[in-house]
Amino acid sequence: MKIAVFGSGSFGTAMASVVARNGHDVIILTRREDVATCINENGRNPQHLTAYELPKNVRATMDAEEAISNAGAIVHAIPMQSTEEFLDGVKDLVKRSGALFVNTSKGLHGETLELMHDVLKRSLGSNHPCAFFGGPTFAEQLMNGTPSGGVMAARDMATAERASALFAGPKMRVYPSTDVVGVEIGGALKNVIAILAGGLEGMGLGVNAQTLLITRGCREMTRLGVAMGAKEHTMAGLSGIGDLMLTCLGDASRNKAVGIAFGRGQKVEDILSERAQSLKGVAEGVATAPAAERLARKLGVAAPMITTCAQCLRGELDAKAALMQCMTLPIRPDEPLDDNKGVAARVISFVTHGTCALLGAFTASWIRSRSRDRA
Amino acid sequence: MKIAVFGSGSFGTAMASVVARNGHDVIILTRREDVATCINENGRNPQHLTAYELPKNVRATMDAEEAISNAGAIVHAIPMQSTEEFLDGVKDLVKRSGALFVNTSKGLHGETLELMHDVLKRSLGSNHPCAFFGGPTFAEQLMNGTPSGGVMAARDMATAERASALFAGPKMRVYPSTDVVGVEIGGALKNVIAILAGGLEGMGLGVNAQTLLITRGCREMTRLGVAMGAKEHTMAGLSGIGDLMLTCLGDASRNKAVGIAFGRGQKVEDILSERAQSLKGVAEGVATAPAAERLARKLGVAAPMITTCAQCLRGELDAKAALMQCMTLPIRPDEPLDDNKGVAARVISFVTHGTCALLGAFTASWIRSRSRDRA
Repeated sequence: MKIAVFGSGSFGTAMASVVARNGHDVIILTRREDVATCINENGRNPQHLTAYELPKNVRATMDAEEAISNAGAIVHAIPMQSTEEFLDGVKDLVKRSGALFVNTSKGLHGETLELMHDVLKRSLGSNHPCAFFGGPTFAEQLMNGTPSGGVMAARDMATAERASALFAGPKMRVYPSTDVVGVEIGGALKNVIAILAGGLEGMGLGVNAQTLLITRGCREMTRLGVAMGAKEHTMAGLSGIGDLMLTCLGDASRNKAVGIAFGRGQKVEDILSERAQSLKGVAEGVATAPAAERLARKLGVAAPMITTCAQCLRGELDAKAALMQCMTLPIRPDEPLDDNKGVAARVISFVTHGTCALLGAFTASWIRSRSRDRA
Repeated sequence: MKIAVFGSGSFGTAMASVVARNGHDVIILTRREDVATCINENGRNPQHLTAYELPKNVRATMDAEEAISNAGAIVHAIPMQSTEEFLDGVKDLVKRSGALFVNTSKGLHGETLELMHDVLKRSLGSNHPCAFFGGPTFAEQLMNGTPSGGVMAARDMATAERASALFAGPKMRVYPSTDVVGVEIGGALKNVIAILAGGLEGMGLGVNAQTLLITRGCREMTRLGVAMGAKEHTMAGLSGIGDLMLTCLGDASRNKAVGIAFGRGQKVEDILSERAQSLKGVAEGVATAPAAERLARKLGVAAPMITTCAQCLRGELDAKAALMQCMTLPIRPDEPLDDNKGVAARVISFVTHGTCALLGAFTASWIRSRSRDRA
C-alpha cells in the first residue's frame, strides 16, 4: 500500500520508517527542498534522526498531489497548532483520496480548547475515516527498533484495527480502541505534568515524589477526560499514564527542562527568555497549562495540579510554595470516576423498565381481551 | 495515641517515624535486643536507615505485652511469609487490645496463594478492624521527608479514613479506599514485573520498552485483580501502577538485579546461587512468579507476561526469546475490564425487567378485571 506521511520532523520520520518496515511504500510530504532531496538521494533525513539510514521504500516530495494521490493511508505528523493552516492547502486532495487519515499529533488548541479530532472534523468533514495514535514512543527509539507500543483509536473498531495493522509488528504493539477522546487527552495534557516533574527534579526530590506526581497527575487528566467522554480505562493505558510516564521520567524534554530550571529557583520569565534567545525551542506545556486550566474551569472539574502549574508559569508561586500547595490539598477517597456512566445507566434503566412495564401491560391486556373474545 | 509497630526492618522504622512525626507515641516491637537497646539509648536503628536519627517519641521493646497493651493502633511491617507464625505468638494480645491493625506487608502466599487479608482473617478473626496500605514509598525517602503518597484500604470507609489519618500530613498523602483486594494485589505482583523490567535494562533497551512493560504489566495485574474482586480504578492508582513504576524504575531492587543479570545473558541458576553465596538477600519475585502463574491459571485469566517470567526463572527461555514471546502475543482491543460488572449488571437488569413485565401484566390484568366487574 502507498502511504503518505505529512511532516518530516523526527516523529514523522520515525513513523514513516515503522510503516515502511512493514512493507508499505512511503512518501513523506515536506515543505523543505533540502530535506526532500537528501531523503531521495542519500536515504537520510538531514535534520532529524540524522544517524539513521531510512528504509529503501521511503521517499520524499514537496508536491502534495504526488504524495496523496492513490495513497491508501495518510500519517499526519505536523504540530497541532499549524495543522489547520496546513490542511487548508491539501484538504481537497485528502478528501478526494478517501485515504485513512492517521493522526499522530497531540495537543490542546490554545484558543479554542479543541483536540485534534475537532480540528480534523472541521477540515475534512465528519465522515472522513480518521484514527488517532497515542503512546510512549520516543522517535529515536522507534527508529532503532526498541520494542514499543501504543493505542490507536477510531470511532469504530474496524477503522481502529485497520490503522493499527499499518504499524503493528514484532517491534511495535498497537492496541485498537474506540476511545478517541481518551487517547487524545493524555497526549494533550502530559506536558503540563512534565513541567511539574521537572520542578521536582530541580528541587532534588526522589522517585517517591515523582511517582506520586505522575500517578495523581494522571488521575487529574482522567477526571478531565471522563468529563469530556473518555473512558477511565484508556487513561490507565499506553496513551495515558504510559505516555505520561515516558514524558516525566525519560530524558529531559523541553518541558522538563523548563521545570528543572524553575525547581532550582530560576524565575519563569528568565527561563523562557533565555530559551528564546538560545533558540532552544518552545516547551509546549507552557502554552498548554493555561489552556488546560481554562478547560477544567469550563468543564467544572477540579484540576489543582494543572492550576498550580499555570500559577507557577504566571509567576504567582515559587517551586516550594507550589509543592506545599499540592501536598496540602484536601484528600478525597480513592473511588472510581463512574459517575457519568452511572447517570447514563440509570436513565437507560429507567426508560427500559418503563418500556417493559408498558409492554407487559399491553400483552396482558391483549391476552385478556383474546380470552374474553373466546369465552 | 500509643501506636505499636511490628518489625524493626527499614519499612517498619520509616513508618514508625512517619506516625511519630504526627505526634503519636510509637513503640517498635523487635526480636533483637541490640536493636531495642540502640533505639532506646541512641535514638537510631543500628541495622536499617542507620544514618537517620529517629523522632524522640519512638521507643522499642522485645516485650509484646508492653508494645500492644493500650495501643490504639498497630502498624504491621513483618514480611508476609513469616506473618502467620509471628501472629501465633501475639494474636490474643492483639485481639484483646482491639487496636486498629494497619498492614503494610505485601505478598502472595507461595503455597496457599492467599493475600495478607486472608492470613489476618485466619489469625485475628473476621471482625478485627484491619486496614491495608500500599503505594510507591521507598523507606529511605519516607525517612528523609520526600513528599510521598499511598492508598489505605479497609472494608469500610470509616476505618480506612481512621487509618489514613495516622500517616497523612504535608509530606505524605494517604487516600482512603474500600478496595482491599485492589490495594493488596498490586503490591503482591509488582516484583514479578520488576524482574522483567530488570531484564529489559540488562538487554540495554530504552524507556519506550520499559513504559510498555510497566503499563501493559499493570493491565495484566489488573485482569487478575478484577477477577478477584478488585476495582480497575485502584490498579491505576498509587498502590497499583504507582508502586509498580517505583519498583521498576527506581534504584535497583533485588528483583531488578536478578532481571538485569538475566538480561545480560547469565543463567538463572547461576544468578540465584551467586546471590545466595554472597548473602545478597532473596528476590521476592523469584518465589512470587510461579505462585502468580498458578493464581492466573486458577482464576482462568490470561497472564502472559507473568507466565513468561516464570518460564525464564525455570530456565525454559532466555531473555531474547522471552522478549520475542511477549512482543508477538495476539493483540486484543484496549477495552475496559468491566465484564464482571457487565455480567452482574445484565443479570440484575434481566431480573428487574422480568419483574417489571410481570408487575405490568398483573396491573393490567387487575385493571381489566376491575373494569369488567363494573361493566
